Amino acid sequence: MASAAERDAMRRALTIAGLGPRGVNPQVGAVILAADGTVLAEGWHRGVGTPHAEVDALSRLAPGDARGATAVVTLEPCNHTGRTGPCSEALIAAGIARVVYSVADPGARSSGGGARLREAGVEVEAGLLLESGHALLESWLTVQSLGRPHVTVKWAQSLDGRAAASDGTSKWITGPDARTDVHRRRAESDVIIVGTGTVLADDPALTARADDGTLLPQQPLPVVLGSRPVPDDAALHRHPHRFLQYSGDLMAVLDDLRMRGAHRVFVEGGPAVAASFVREGLADELLVYVAPVLLGGDMLALRDIGVDTIAHARRLSVSGVQTLGDDLLVIAIPASEGDA
Amino acid sequence: MASAAERDAMRRALTIAGLGPRGVNPQVGAVILAADGTVLAEGWHRGVGTPHAEVDALSRLAPGDARGATAVVTLEPCNHTGRTGPCSEALIAAGIARVVYSVADPGARSSGGGARLREAGVEVEAGLLLESGHALLESWLTVQSLGRPHVTVKWAQSLDGRAAASDGTSKWITGPDARTDVHRRRAESDVIIVGTGTVLADDPALTARADDGTLLPQQPLPVVLGSRPVPDDAALHRHPHRFLQYSGDLMAVLDDLRMRGAHRVFVEGGPAVAASFVREGLADELLVYVAPVLLGGDMLALRDIGVDTIAHARRLSVSGVQTLGDDLLVIAIPASEGDA
Ligand SMILES: NC(=O)c1ccc[n+]([C@@H]2O[C@H](COP(=O)([O-])OP(=O)(O)OC[C@H]3O[C@@H](n4cnc5c(N)ncnc54)[C@H](OP(=O)(O)O)[C@@H]3O)[C@@H](O)[C@H]2O)c1
Ligand SMILES: NC(=O)c1ccc[n+]([C@@H]2O[C@H](COP(=O)([O-])OP(=O)(O)OC[C@H]3O[C@@H](n4cnc5c(N)ncnc54)[C@H](OP(=O)(O)O)[C@@H]3O)[C@@H](O)[C@H]2O)c1
Repeated sequence: MASAAERDAMRRALTIAGLGPRGVNPQVGAVILAADGTVLAEGWHRGVGTPHAEVDALSRLAPGDARGATAVVTLEPCNHTGRTGPCSEALIAAGIARVVYSVADPGARSSGGGARLREAGVEVEAGLLLESGHALLESWLTVQSLGRPHVTVKWAQSLDGRAAASDGTSKWITGPDARTDVHRRRAESDVIIVGTGTVLADDPALTARADDGTLLPQQPLPVVLGSRPVPDDAALHRHPHRFLQYSGDLMAVLDDLRMRGAHRVFVEGGPAVAASFVREGLADELLVYVAPVLLGGDMLALRDIGVDTIAHARRLSVSGVQTLGDDLLVIAIPASEGDA
Repeated sequence: MASAAERDAMRRALTIAGLGPRGVNPQVGAVILAADGTVLAEGWHRGVGTPHAEVDALSRLAPGDARGATAVVTLEPCNHTGRTGPCSEALIAAGIARVVYSVADPGARSSGGGARLREAGVEVEAGLLLESGHALLESWLTVQSLGRPHVTVKWAQSLDGRAAASDGTSKWITGPDARTDVHRRRAESDVIIVGTGTVLADDPALTARADDGTLLPQQPLPVVLGSRPVPDDAALHRHPHRFLQYSGDLMAVLDDLRMRGAHRVFVEGGPAVAASFVREGLADELLVYVAPVLLGGDMLALRDIGVDTIAHARRLSVSGVQTLGDDLLVIAIPASEGDA
C-alpha cells in the first residue's frame, strides 16, 4: 500500500510531468522521498535527448543522499539503454529502496524496469493514481499501441453523401456551429492533413480559429499530401507553422509524423485523401458533419474505398450523434470484427 | 356556446364518421338533436356516390320532424351540387334552426355552406371539438391542401450515401429494427411505390409484415413506375392487392392515385424514382435510414436531383433523428424558403 506521502508525491509528479513537452517521448515526472516522507528532490523529462525524470531528480542530490529513499514516478522506470542509460539501473545504483509508479511502460524494448528493480531487491508498487496517469499519457499511450499517431478523418457532407454541388461549389454546406466544432478539434490535434486537390480548390488557411477569426492558442502543423506544388500565394504560407508536404505511402507519412512527435492527426480531406485513409484501415475515428440538404450529382464526399460487395462493407460503431445548429455530427469508430 | 348535449352529439358524430371509408370524400358524421337535446337521428357518409352525412341523418326522420332541430356535423355542410345536392340547402329545407360543426370545409367549390345557412337565418356555430375533428380528417385535409396525396420518400443508405456495394449487393444495409419501422410505416400508407429497376433487381413483396413474417392487417396498394414489364413470377403477383403500373408524369400518377382515394403515398425507391420525386418537389417528407457502414463506389442512394450549384441545394428541416438498433433514421421535410 502506498502511504499518504507517496500519494501526495505522485500528484506532484503528475503535475511536473506536464511541464515537459508532448512528443515522441512520454511526459514523466519523478519525486524522491526520504523514509519519513519528506521530499528530497524532483525532476521531469524535458524531451528527446534530455535525462529521464528519475535521472533528472537523482541528479539534484549529492551522491549517497538517495540511499534508502523512495522514488515516486508517473511511468514505470525504463529498462533500456537509449540516449540515456536505463533508469532502473540508475535507481538501483543510487540505492533507492522502494519505487512507486503509476502507469506501466508499454514499450517492447523499454518495459521490464519494474521486474529488473524487484530482481535487484527494490520494493516496487505499481498503479498508484492510475487513472490520472493514464489521462496524462493518453495520446502517447495510443501512439504506442497503434505504432503510429491516432488518425481522425473528418468530412462534411449533404445527407445524401455529397461534398459539393455539380459545379464544385460547397461553401457552406454546414453551418457556423459545425465550423466552430471543427476549429476546436483542429486545436486539439497536432497535425492537420489535406490533399493537394483541396489546397488547389479551396486555398484553406488550416489554422484553428475562434468564431471572431482570431487564432486559437494551439495551432496544428499543416501537412499537404500529393505531388502537385502548393501555389506561391496559397493561404497556407501564412500559417504560423511552416507546412510539410509529402507524396507517397500514408503509413510512411504517419511514421514520419510520429517521429516528429505527433500524437493526433486530423485528416480534413478531400474526398480522395479521406477515402485513402479509410481504404487502408488508417482511420481510427470518423467525424461526419451531415448538413440537412440534398445535392445529388457526382461530387461525392468519400471516393472509392475498395468495398466490392456488401459483406465487405466497412462497418462502423457510432459512438455519438450530436446536433450542431442545423447540422448533425456523427462520430464513429471502425467496428471490431465481432460487431459486424 | 355549444351546450353539453351538443358536445356529446359531436363526440358521437366523430365516432360514426369513422365508420365511413377513408378516400376521395371526407369521413363525416351528423347527429340531429331536438330542442331539448334528445337525439332524433344520426347518419354518416359511406363514400363516393352515397348521401352526405347530414342528408343520411335527415332521411331517417319523417318530413317535418327536423323543424326547429339542431344539426351537429363534423364538417361544415357543403354548398355545392355534386352527385348529391348541397347539404346546406337540405338542412334549410328541413327547417333546421341551428347547425354546429367542427371543421371548416377547405374545398374551393364546396365551402361556404356555413355562410349560406346564416343567410337563410340558421344559427351557425363553428369549431366545436376542432382538434378531434382535425385528427379524424388529418390525411384528407392534407390531400385537399396539397391537391394530391402526401408523399413520403424513404431510402436506406450507408453513412456515405450509397444504396449498395459496387456489385449491387445491398441486403441488409440496415438492421432488423429499421426494417420493422419500415413495415409499420408501410401499413400506415395507402400506396407504396417502387420503380421497375427495384422490382427487377430485388423482387420485393411490398407487403407490410410483422417481425415474424405474417401480414399486418393494413396492406398498402403496390404501385410500380416504369415501362418495363413486371416478370410473371414476381413476388408482387402474390400481394393481397393487385398492383398498378404507370409510366409517365409523376403528377399524373399522383392525381390518379388521389382519385382512387389515396391520402398517403410511401415511395420506397429505388434511387432513380426517389430522385425524381425530390427533383420535382413532390417529396413532402423524407425518411433516410442511415446504416453505420461505409461503402464508397458509385451505387448512390439518390441519383441526380438537378442541383447545379450550392445555392440551389435542397435545404431540409430535420424534424427528428431516431436510433433504430445500430441505424439512424433521419426524418426531414423540405425547408420553407425562409429557413434556407
Ligand atoms: N466536404 C468536405 O469535407 C471537403 C473537405 C475537403 C475538400 N473538399 C472538396 O474536395 C474537392 C477536392 O477533392 P480531391 O479529391 O481532388 O482532393 P484531395 O483529396 O484533397 O486531394 C487529392 C490529391 O491528394 C494527393 N494524394 C496524396 N496521397 C494521396 C492518397 N494516399 N490518396 C489520395 N490522394 C492522395 C493526390 O495529389 P497529387 O495528384 O498532387 O499527387 C491527389 O490527387 C474540392 O472541391 C474541395 O472543396 C470537401
Ligand atoms: N437503398 C434503398 O433504399 C433502395 C431502395 C430500393 C431499391 N434500391 C436499389 O436500387 C437499385 C435499382 O435502382 P434503379 O434506380 O434502377 O431503380 P428504380 O428507381 O426503382 O427504377 C428506375 C426506373 O423507374 C422507372 N420510372 C418511372 N417513372 C420514373 C421517374 N419519374 N423517374 C425515374 N424513374 C422512373 C423507369 O423505368 P423504365 O425504364 O422501366 O421505364 C426507371 O428506369 C437496385 O439495386 C435496388 O436494390 C435501393
